[in-house]
Amino acid sequence: MSAYVLQSADAAVSEWMTTLGEKAVARDPGTLDKYARTTQAEATRPCCILYPETTEDVQAIVEIASDHGVPVYPISCGKNWGYGDACAPSGGAAILDLGRMNRILEVNRELAYCVVEPGVTQGQLFDYLQDNDTGLWMDASAAGPDSSLVGNTVERGFGHTRYGDHFRNCCGMEIVLADGRVLNTGFGHFPNAKATHVYPYGVGPYLDGLFTQSNYGIVTKMGLWLMPEPEAFNFFFFQAPRFEDLEELVDRIRPLRMAGTLDTAIHIGNDFRVLAGSGKYPWDLAKGVVPLPPELRQQLREQSGAQAWQGSGSITGTKARVRAARKALRKALRGCASRLVFLDDRKIRSLEWTCTALNAVGLGKKLARAMKILRPNYDLLKGVPTIEAVMGTYWRLRKPPDVPGELLDSGCGLYWVSPVIPMKGSEAIALLNLAEPIFEEHGFDMLVSLNLLTERCLVGVFNVTFDKSLPGEAERASACYEALVDAMMARGYNLYRAGLQGMPKMREEPSVFWEVAAEIKRALDPKDIISRGRYNPPLQDRPR
Amino acid sequence: MSAYVLQSADAAVSEWMTTLGEKAVARDPGTLDKYARTTQAEATRPCCILYPETTEDVQAIVEIASDHGVPVYPISCGKNWGYGDACAPSGGAAILDLGRMNRILEVNRELAYCVVEPGVTQGQLFDYLQDNDTGLWMDASAAGPDSSLVGNTVERGFGHTRYGDHFRNCCGMEIVLADGRVLNTGFGHFPNAKATHVYPYGVGPYLDGLFTQSNYGIVTKMGLWLMPEPEAFNFFFFQAPRFEDLEELVDRIRPLRMAGTLDTAIHIGNDFRVLAGSGKYPWDLAKGVVPLPPELRQQLREQSGAQAWQGSGSITGTKARVRAARKALRKALRGCASRLVFLDDRKIRSLEWTCTALNAVGLGKKLARAMKILRPNYDLLKGVPTIEAVMGTYWRLRKPPDVPGELLDSGCGLYWVSPVIPMKGSEAIALLNLAEPIFEEHGFDMLVSLNLLTERCLVGVFNVTFDKSLPGEAERASACYEALVDAMMARGYNLYRAGLQGMPKMREEPSVFWEVAAEIKRALDPKDIISRGRYNPPLQDRPR
Repeated sequence: MSAYVLQSADAAVSEWMTTLGEKAVARDPGTLDKYARTTQAEATRPCCILYPETTEDVQAIVEIASDHGVPVYPISCGKNWGYGDACAPSGGAAILDLGRMNRILEVNRELAYCVVEPGVTQGQLFDYLQDNDTGLWMDASAAGPDSSLVGNTVERGFGHTRYGDHFRNCCGMEIVLADGRVLNTGFGHFPNAKATHVYPYGVGPYLDGLFTQSNYGIVTKMGLWLMPEPEAFNFFFFQAPRFEDLEELVDRIRPLRMAGTLDTAIHIGNDFRVLAGSGKYPWDLAKGVVPLPPELRQQLREQSGAQAWQGSGSITGTKARVRAARKALRKALRGCASRLVFLDDRKIRSLEWTCTALNAVGLGKKLARAMKILRPNYDLLKGVPTIEAVMGTYWRLRKPPDVPGELLDSGCGLYWVSPVIPMKGSEAIALLNLAEPIFEEHGFDMLVSLNLLTERCLVGVFNVTFDKSLPGEAERASACYEALVDAMMARGYNLYRAGLQGMPKMREEPSVFWEVAAEIKRALDPKDIISRGRYNPPLQDRPR
Repeated sequence: MSAYVLQSADAAVSEWMTTLGEKAVARDPGTLDKYARTTQAEATRPCCILYPETTEDVQAIVEIASDHGVPVYPISCGKNWGYGDACAPSGGAAILDLGRMNRILEVNRELAYCVVEPGVTQGQLFDYLQDNDTGLWMDASAAGPDSSLVGNTVERGFGHTRYGDHFRNCCGMEIVLADGRVLNTGFGHFPNAKATHVYPYGVGPYLDGLFTQSNYGIVTKMGLWLMPEPEAFNFFFFQAPRFEDLEELVDRIRPLRMAGTLDTAIHIGNDFRVLAGSGKYPWDLAKGVVPLPPELRQQLREQSGAQAWQGSGSITGTKARVRAARKALRKALRGCASRLVFLDDRKIRSLEWTCTALNAVGLGKKLARAMKILRPNYDLLKGVPTIEAVMGTYWRLRKPPDVPGELLDSGCGLYWVSPVIPMKGSEAIALLNLAEPIFEEHGFDMLVSLNLLTERCLVGVFNVTFDKSLPGEAERASACYEALVDAMMARGYNLYRAGLQGMPKMREEPSVFWEVAAEIKRALDPKDIISRGRYNPPLQDRPR
């Protein structure tokens, strides 16, 4: 970091303190240390942390940042696990922690939407909807109750229900631009606009997409669509025993997804996903060997009740509709899935009751195991934010924590690799055949799920999970990540989302796309103040 | 037009002729006359017409346009009826008629999408899908078989099926920028990308929305999602007798739409929509009086079988799902709609047969009338492009043509006014109560339909239809349009789309939104070459 940059930062920090008050700025080593952690190989260290409470605060912050040429890096709740977490692409930025902007500004029951600030967490909205008997359900990503709704949406993350594509179900944004102006998208900029949160596009260019996976502005408010509690809800869960069964599973479900018979983001996870649910790599049994030897994998698979593949999704609507979809899915999976079960609230309560009762007399281990797999998935499909998926990332820790907590406290290393492929069984198999040797070669287990996100595509979600405390492991994980991304991109399987390490790879190939992205950046943020280097290429240094 | 502009145009035209060949450029008065027509009050006259056949042609055209500072105005098929048709916002532009770029580049049966050029018409794609037994259905807007798919999509137009929101179902664009560069959106810019047309967002900023209702580039290729022919199809049609019934209709259907039980863009039209279907205002009976006197309206309503409201939509999916939705709709409309019928292919064939048979013996007039209302709606809901809705705009012509043809040949005047409101009965009634006196005051009949486009909003589609040959009528229509838009915007009911006359009204109120739109324009097209003044404000004249 040059002396000039440091000086600018000092001047900016003192101006931020004057303007926002001391409580809104942190610069002590302890706090900086906390923000300089990551699940990836390399963290970056910020120059300070800013805690705005209002849109006006954010405006003041960027104006000062702009005056001093100090980049700011907004995070909503900083839980962008495995994609860079709360870290900026480069050191020396001021982290703009939006966590104190955590107001639920509106919940409209009749039209089923809410308007939230970026600090509102999944858990907070869920509790609000429950506590106030709104009769509304939300969609939750698997990032846990403490993660931000807005943060996930601007990253174009996804969840599990009919509203699983978060960006597709957000409507009307407020955005602070680099010069402090406030942009309202859709109809939001018209006086008295009545349809801002029910119709996304407004009139004139539809700008919202610009503010996802980019750095053109800071989203300070967002409308999100919610679902009225359905008349009926059915969770479904299926399994298939052989690796190659995936091909037929995908091809058989595709027509149901495309016809709208199934309309949630169906997830199909491999056996490692189940095993990792326990959070414990069998270090002793494996005698320290990685990746997991095939015989041991088979043995654990049998013990846990896992099969090669487990899929889950849900059906909602009228009772008759749910019945109809159930019938269609049964027919489609006949002779392909080894198991297909449907659960509703009544059934799952009764199973849990049985489980508890059996447990009391020392029985029912198999059922208990099954419930351990099912319950978190069941909840996610009702939009309940759960922490279990995050726990799955503890898999390769030598000493995983007993209780899931802050991921960064656990020393857990994590890279997500998430390519999009056409929803075809053959492509899914090809993708896995491409990835598996790379995982093995680097000593990692291929944890993967395939998600039928839209009606036509699958998102493969691979994670490279590792223990940051083991010497050399972070480097191996990083190399594995790079090799996976390179191999996938060469094959035309491009990522739907990238972590800090992946972003430069996305723009390696020169293209008009990234040129245009940079030209828009230059128009809206010529000093490259906001989230420098995030997805978009950093602009060349320009003197003030 | 200044002498300088004319000179530039001359120089540009001669360069276009040299580069593209004489057949690709027209400048004769007859052709210019043809393009200088509109359904609105005021047309603009272009300086020439260009007919590119390839993306490379379009690149060459904008490069020359840029060199000479001559604005170009791309049209796909020029059928933007009632929104400015094929006219540029200002005179003197070169019309870029993309009609010769009419290749269907790909139809993927397995993944149910197509890739088309802007000149591909609704009728052309429909025929292709039928003739090749693809088993795929498309969505059609009501603009008729000769209108462009791409044109409608970049205008964010809509149709009638589950894929009625055209922009939401387009995926992967190729765009020529003002400097001749070619931008591929989504994953399209990556080598070998496999998911370009199945996943819309790509990685990094999602840019596609920028190229709708704007002037940042020229879309030369687009992926569009299609629907596999459903196992079962049911058309539904309902009616309600009283104006105020609308409130309950909307409130009762909303929950079904929001739960996904109904998933098409349900249209609810008033009696005038039915009456206008015949294309003939009863000039003699009304003794030349406008708008239609209430008694006469009542009389015609009874004669035609129309009621205050008629709604239509469809249900697709498995047979069981269609049955389930039918049941839910019946229950919802009980005691509210005076009639609810469900039709499938078998039933409609049998009705048509009966109709023909009765007609042969001079009977069945009532049935024939009913079929006249139902058939075009039925077809549209199966994605069949029909011309009847366009015919409805002949309503106020003194001498309507017997056969529907080119709208501009008929002397028909037309303004669409299409506000978006929250999907609430009370808002729908408020909107109509606001609009009706304005229509009457200006001597026009309020033709209106309300479209349940998304799960949360209604788009009101009003048309001011008039006869351009009557002295003073175009001025009255124009004044009526202005008054409607002003009243609606003041109330917070903003338009989802604007015609040339409406565009400046959209940006009257200063806002950061339009500032940002202009800044992006300046970044991508600094000379304001493409579609100057279309939605975005014209940039200030800048010397070359």
